[in-house]
Amino acid sequence: MAVKTLNVNEDILSANDMLADNLKARFEASGVFVMNLMSSPGAGKTSLILRIIESLAPKHKIGVIEGDIASDVDARKIQATDVDVVQINTRGACHLDANMILSASQSIGVEDKRLLIIENVGNLVCPAEFRLGENVKVMILSIPEGHDKPLKYPLMFTESNALILNKIDLLSHTDFDMEELRKTVSAMNPSIRIFPLSAKTGEGMGDFTAWLEDKMGAK
Amino acid sequence: MAVKTLNVNEDILSANDMLADNLKARFEASGVFVMNLMSSPGAGKTSLILRIIESLAPKHKIGVIEGDIASDVDARKIQATDVDVVQINTRGACHLDANMILSASQSIGVEDKRLLIIENVGNLVCPAEFRLGENVKVMILSIPEGHDKPLKYPLMFTESNALILNKIDLLSHTDFDMEELRKTVSAMNPSIRIFPLSAKTGEGMGDFTAWLEDKMGAK
Repeated sequence: MAVKTLNVNEDILSANDMLADNLKARFEASGVFVMNLMSSPGAGKTSLILRIIESLAPKHKIGVIEGDIASDVDARKIQATDVDVVQINTRGACHLDANMILSASQSIGVEDKRLLIIENVGNLVCPAEFRLGENVKVMILSIPEGHDKPLKYPLMFTESNALILNKIDLLSHTDFDMEELRKTVSAMNPSIRIFPLSAKTGEGMGDFTAWLEDKMGAK
Repeated sequence: MAVKTLNVNEDILSANDMLADNLKARFEASGVFVMNLMSSPGAGKTSLILRIIESLAPKHKIGVIEGDIASDVDARKIQATDVDVVQINTRGACHLDANMILSASQSIGVEDKRLLIIENVGNLVCPAEFRLGENVKVMILSIPEGHDKPLKYPLMFTESNALILNKIDLLSHTDFDMEELRKTVSAMNPSIRIFPLSAKTGEGMGDFTAWLEDKMGAK
């Protein structure tokens, strides 16, 4: 008789996928559009969310789920804007999963929201594997991280619908090769949209929020 | 009868610790000092290693183990310096483990080395949990990532012997608060050594390599 092998990782992923499908159906029934935002630590996820709130909160009811291993630093920044926010502390886990989003979305109340933004744990690796019931995956690569990252962390670049190149205000102080980056990413993921911008100065934000509203069906 | 609960994560960690102890004893017997280098993607691990090689390779035989999910971009940069290098591709795994280092150290041949540098997968979370038989853990936080990272990713800051603040050449273009950072990190880990430097310009490298040689017992 053949030995039974238990592939724990595959089982976890398929259970997460089932729950994510369920979540997605619930979100759609409530008319809420969900964006899963992923990047390395410090690439500018919270700054981008603050800019999105600035631009879209006057038009659409927004909710934010903040994922962090520890602390509520980011949630407090969002709270200052009067947008509803809930903090998930993963206590060591390197990514959010659908089960955490189920609890958080019940806590925040998604029924009255038009846009739910999920800020994933800062990590260019693990979050790409776990679906959260989102409509779009958006990732940030910040200019100081360098243009060679798609080759080294391919899954997130392949999985994302949009790639934000943040901190273009630092471009002239680095050797970041924008053309090389575009070439590499487009070969890996031909349908990905690329948005160079600065969440700090606001430059380029309009193109991204226009794309987001288009995806939401709000334009 | 109580239900048996299998904590897969704890079992994996304790198996890794056993192997790491074994590895550490082997490295010590060979007289090789091992540094485990960790950071987010793009914080400057490979650039730092190139600077260490520039400074210490004339005095000490160095070997480098490069850990990446995919690609050999970094290993090729190291190879150009004539230092022995081996690339580990983790095929999706978000950190190196002791078993990978066992294979890689056999492949590179550690017996004739005085310093073995292990470049971990770019990730501020998972690598902090897995010992690799190292003598010191060194982490990099780059200035553009921001001074709030210790609160959000505490384990790596707690586990590391030295914290390199890289890209200080970009300091004036950011709102990075050096004093706040020092205060937060020192409260979490009073014995950690902090080295602000720029691997790009070379500024501040001397203090770090002096510390490293001191730890190696080479001074």
